[in-house]
Formats: sequence, structure tokens, C-alpha cells
Amino acid sequence: MADNVDVSATSPFEGPEKLLEIWFAPSPADSGLRKVPRHVWEDMLAIVKCQVLSVIEGSEMDAYLLSESSFFVSPHRLILKTCGTTLNLLGLPRILDIAREHASLPSVYRCFYSRKSYFFPERQKGPHREWKNEVQYLDGIFENGAAYTVGKVNGDHWLLYITNPSSDASNSPVAFSQRTDYTIEILMTRLSPNATQSFIFGPDADESEESPSSRAQTLSSTIGISDLFPPHLTTLDAFAFSPCGYSSNALLKWGNAAEGREAPGAGTDDEGGEGYYTIHVTPEEGWSYASFECNVPLASHQAPQPQSIPDIRTLVRRVVDIFQPGRLSLTLFISSEGNSEAEEERGESAVEAAQRAFRAALTSSAAAGGAYKRTDKINYEFGGYDLAFASFELCA
Amino acid sequence: MADNVDVSATSPFEGPEKLLEIWFAPSPADSGLRKVPRHVWEDMLAIVKCQVLSVIEGSEMDAYLLSESSFFVSPHRLILKTCGTTLNLLGLPRILDIAREHASLPSVYRCFYSRKSYFFPERQKGPHREWKNEVQYLDGIFENGAAYTVGKVNGDHWLLYITNPSSDASNSPVAFSQRTDYTIEILMTRLSPNATQSFIFGPDADESEESPSSRAQTLSSTIGISDLFPPHLTTLDAFAFSPCGYSSNALLKWGNAAEGREAPGAGTDDEGGEGYYTIHVTPEEGWSYASFECNVPLASHQAPQPQSIPDIRTLVRRVVDIFQPGRLSLTLFISSEGNSEAEEERGESAVEAAQRAFRAALTSSAAAGGAYKRTDKINYEFGGYDLAFASFELCA
Repeated sequence: MADNVDVSATSPFEGPEKLLEIWFAPSPADSGLRKVPRHVWEDMLAIVKCQVLSVIEGSEMDAYLLSESSFFVSPHRLILKTCGTTLNLLGLPRILDIAREHASLPSVYRCFYSRKSYFFPERQKGPHREWKNEVQYLDGIFENGAAYTVGKVNGDHWLLYITNPSSDASNSPVAFSQRTDYTIEILMTRLSPNATQSFIFGPDADESEESPSSRAQTLSSTIGISDLFPPHLTTLDAFAFSPCGYSSNALLKWGNAAEGREAPGAGTDDEGGEGYYTIHVTPEEGWSYASFECNVPLASHQAPQPQSIPDIRTLVRRVVDIFQPGRLSLTLFISSEGNSEAEEERGESAVEAAQRAFRAALTSSAAAGGAYKRTDKINYEFGGYDLAFASFELCA
Repeated sequence: MADNVDVSATSPFEGPEKLLEIWFAPSPADSGLRKVPRHVWEDMLAIVKCQVLSVIEGSEMDAYLLSESSFFVSPHRLILKTCGTTLNLLGLPRILDIAREHASLPSVYRCFYSRKSYFFPERQKGPHREWKNEVQYLDGIFENGAAYTVGKVNGDHWLLYITNPSSDASNSPVAFSQRTDYTIEILMTRLSPNATQSFIFGPDADESEESPSSRAQTLSSTIGISDLFPPHLTTLDAFAFSPCGYSSNALLKWGNAAEGREAPGAGTDDEGGEGYYTIHVTPEEGWSYASFECNVPLASHQAPQPQSIPDIRTLVRRVVDIFQPGRLSLTLFISSEGNSEAEEERGESAVEAAQRAFRAALTSSAAAGGAYKRTDKINYEFGGYDLAFASFELCA
């Protein structure tokens, strides 16, 4: 993606994104981050080295499509996902300034920073060249940060920095106390040429009468992205890069926010709202990469019904069937606030149920792209969050 | 420990050990590693920079106490554990040569290398200065190695390198096919001065009439080390360093190898044999450290009986009551060969049961040293092995 912005078609492109997610502690006078003027965000994005391509304004968040990935703005949460050689973390001090000055949000409740291992670490800039430097940079800003290298140090891995809330938890954002916070990512490499050819539009694409957005909408329908979630619950914004590459953001109604009180995939009957998914594709052979990320809670065991939110197994299979990766890593983050005694129940934990669903989705040979074998399975319990991590390889 | 060997009493000493464990694939003509002459091992240990202090010869293994930790020799398995600034990994090529030339054991079935994060990484030598270099060194020897950073990159963590057996698994050592392989480690720092004072013998200790071994045996009894396991099942070899520090190896009869067919802590009724534990203590304030390692399978749920092998919870509490650490990490490695479908049973896994036992042992305030809070909980599934990792801190 974004090959038209800062790299020539023949330079390798770093698809794997840097993902920064910040939750702010509400304050009595706060105005929420969605009221911050767009030009203020654009000044911050200029530091990071990316630009806004388009935006969709939902009922609960604004979803910006960027020249390098995506930016989601909710009243008390920001998600900045940027690929290539962007300087994601250099935007963080400005984000904290903006939140304080423009939204009266002076304190961070939790911050997460994560990324997959790079294809080309030597091409990165600033603190992003080495995990050690990224951790030092974040430790300079936060007091309660913990950094993890998840998976093989000498192979595919995923890096995570997570801060703990200060001991005064009374000012936690609503979402932390009343809702399950849930994020699934599917990070795919070595995509099948059969899958990537759809994302190569050729050098003349810019001269076409069809807009990059329109071309991407058509492609989204053709290859099944539009049907990952029920279309009547989905608002999709997509962009086709020239000569190749693809990005999309989608806003999703789920649970009691969906028409007809669509049953949520997980959580209580009272849950629901507006979530997102975001997809970014770098199709070039040699560094092909696709990412899928979604924050709508998914069921671990639900039987798939065509008109409802898919369960984990169904969704993973749909995504993998589109991109047909040779290797992939899956991460599932799920909040466990107020649920620290769940371990005592001796039932299957949410992360263990997700691990089972990942394996069921990928190790069956009935699927289009073939069967996978699992090469890593790791479960973490952080204070307030549980994480499932798994890696798979296509069987030879 | 070992302060009399290569550091002055005022230099900081690196207690955390480098731990190398190698399982060799049996070959038709192999003579087993216990028949290798002692001087051959001593030449290898000279490369590593340590010396033999004493040895106990058991029915299934030889346990060497070293100037820097321990060395265990079984027919198809070697365990080399060395602390300080020893060059543990530089012994590996020589070990492979010795196994091939002196025991007709040309191929490694599995190799494990692990260590805790150092207090003083800048004092290390050769490949041991950085994890990255240790991994490169091992990748130069093994083709199927996976390296993991377990726990917080920017805090206490534990490093692990593990090789996968080659696809020809027909030549696995007996222990891998018929027995559960089980290793628990308790790595403790910030020991209470109340606990460490027993391990400081003073500068005149060398001139005492009591030998270092005799003094260490007396201490082992006084502080409860001799009672960690039933004394009638234990053969203890201990050493008191001058001016301070302590090491011990113990051989343990368990299961059907114990008199009266002592019920094993875990595994089937047919299991049993000779296991070990090993303890090493660096008592100096500022870098105090104690390690406990044991390969006797322990029950997760068994009620403690004074005359039997303790369950996990009882053992962890006994060890922690002796050393009263401010922080500790626990690791449990358990083989899962032929048991890969255990996950399907939806029962509690062995690692999850161990995690529960760790927490039960440490978070109760009824214990002598006070209550701990858990700061990390991570479960790994490798092919053929599962790992539980947990870290705890003493509550303020």
C-alpha cells in the first residue's frame, strides 16, 4: 500500500504496521477527542509522516484512512496504525499535548504499542529501528510500562508495550468498566500470488476514470472483503493505491446497536455499539503482507449464521481464504477487569477458547488455501488484560 | 557462591546461572555418557572456566558440584549449569565432540539453553554479553532452534532457546517416549537479610577445622534444605564457600524407585527413578540471588504428607520460606510427547494447574515471609513441551 507516496515501485515496502492505542482517563470538563479540529490531527500526522486520504464519521468514532494505514478517533480513545517507515511514536508527545489542550484530557489511562517484526529493520527511522529503542522511548513517557517480545526472537514475532493504569482506577473510561475491550489481529505474510494479483492495479491506474475509492469498493466486493461482516451492519471506506496496494476501514454496528438488536457475538445482552475493522495489503512478491484488525467481540463457539456477526473460526477462515498467506500470526486481546477470579472457575478461559478456534479454523484441510500447522501458542495474563498469540505455517 | 574462585569479596557477583541441557539420540553402539572419563569432562569445564569440587554417583546419574554451580551426567543427557562470568556455551562444541568420540552419541535429540536476565550484563564475556549473540551462537550449531524472551523485556525476564527434534523421531531417548520430562525452577532475588545471613561464613572460614562440605551439611539441616524432600529419599552434597555463598546437589529417589514404592507425585504408577535438585545461593546484599531447580515430577493437587514427595504448592512455599525473596520467577517445563491432543479434553492443563499451585503457594498471607502478588503469567506450548512462567513480587 501507499507505494505512490514515498517509495518507488521497485523499493521494498514495509507492510507490517506500528500500532499505537491510547485510552484517556475521562475528566469532569473533558470535551472528547472527536471535537478536536481535523487540521490539529493533520499537524500531528505530519510529524508521523503520513496524510489523510478520507474519513468516515460514525456514531461513536471517526475512521481516517491514511496514506500509510489508519487513524481512529473516539471520545476517549485514539488508535494510530501506520506502516512503511513512518515515525509513529514521534506522534505520541503531540497526541498527549492535543488531548490535554484541545479536549481537557490530561491523563492516559492505558497505552498499548505493538508491531510485528519488520522485514527490513535497517530501513526504519528514529526509535523504530530497534525494539530496545522503542521501549526506551516509551519508558521515557510512561512510568508503568511493560515490554514483551511475543514469539520467536529468531523468527516471526510480535512486540508489545502495555502500560498499567495508575493505582487510582476510579477514573477509568466507561469502556473499561462497562464493556469488554476486545481486539483481534491477523497478520499475514507470504501471500499466494493467486491472492495478491487482485491488488496490483498497474502504473496507469492513476489515469483511469475510476477513482481509487471506487476501484477499491469494487475490489472489496469481488474478493469477499465486503462480506466478512453482514453488509447491512458495515460502512466501508476503501482505497486502491497506484500501482498496487489496498487499505480499508469499516465501521460496524454490533450487539444492541445493530438493527433488530442483533445478538452480539460475545459479552452480555446489554453490550453493543460501533466497532471497526481495518485491512491493509502490500501485494508485492518478496514482502507481501496483509493485516486484518477488528474490535468487535466475536464468539468462540457460535455457529455461523449468514446474517450475523461471524464467530472467531468463521472470520479467521474468511480472512485467510482471501489472502492465502504462507505464514500468519494471530493475536487476541481481551479485557478482564473485574474478572480476575475467572481463573478460579476452572472453565475454559476466553483466550484458551480463542486458541481452540484459531486452530479449528486453520488446521482443517477442507479450506481453499490448504491446511496450516501451528508453530507457536502463547497465552499471557496481564493485569486487566489477557492475550492469546498463535503462529501458523502452511503445510508443505 | 564461588567468591573464593574468581572474584574478590567486594566485586559484584552474577548469581543467575546459564543452564544448558542436552539430550542425545541413542545409537545402537552407544556406551552412554557416564562412562566418559572424568578428566575428559574436566578439560571441557576448563573451557567454561570452572572446576569440579565434588561428585556423587547415583544409580542413574552423576552429580558434580562445581566452583560455579553444577553438572549432571546421565547416559543420554547432560545438564551444565554455571553462574558468574563462566563461558557456558563455549563448552557446547566440546561436549558434542566428547559425546561423539567417547560415547558414540553423534546426534542431539533436543537442546535447551536458558537463563534469567543478568544483574550485570556488561561483566559477561564472549557470546554471553547479549541474548542476541547467544542466539546467533546456538543458531550456528543447531538448525531447528527457537529463541524466546519470556517476561518483561524492560524488567525481570527469562531467556530460552529450544531445539526441535529432527523429523526422524524414532531415535528419541527412552525418557522422552516412556517418561514425563519435568523441570521446575525457582529463581529468587532481593533475598531477605534475615535469610542471607546464614550463608555468610566470614573471611576466616577457610581456616576453620570444619570442611566446606561439613559446614554446608550442617547449614542445610539447620535452615530446612535437608527437609525439602524426605531425607530417606535424598542424597545431599553441599558446599559452603568462603567468605560466603552456598551450593548443593541432591539425588532423589521417587516413584517406584523409592523404598516401599513411594507413590509418585505425578505421572503413572509405573513411573519413578532417580531425580535431582540443585540449589545455589549468592547472599551479598545488592545482588543477592538463590536458585532452586528440580526434575522430580510434582503433583499439582496432592495433599502434603510429611513422608512423601511434596506437591508443587508445598515445595514452592518451603523454598520461598527459606530464602524470603523480594522477587521471584518460576518456570515449569513439562513434556507433552504423545499428548498433543490433551488440549481437546477441555480439562485443566498441567501448566495451568501448576500456575494455580504457584499462586496458591505465594499469594496467601499466612506464610512466614509475607504475601506476594503475581506480576506475570505466561503459558507456552512448544512442540512436545509446555512451559508455565510466572513472576511474583512481595507485597509492600
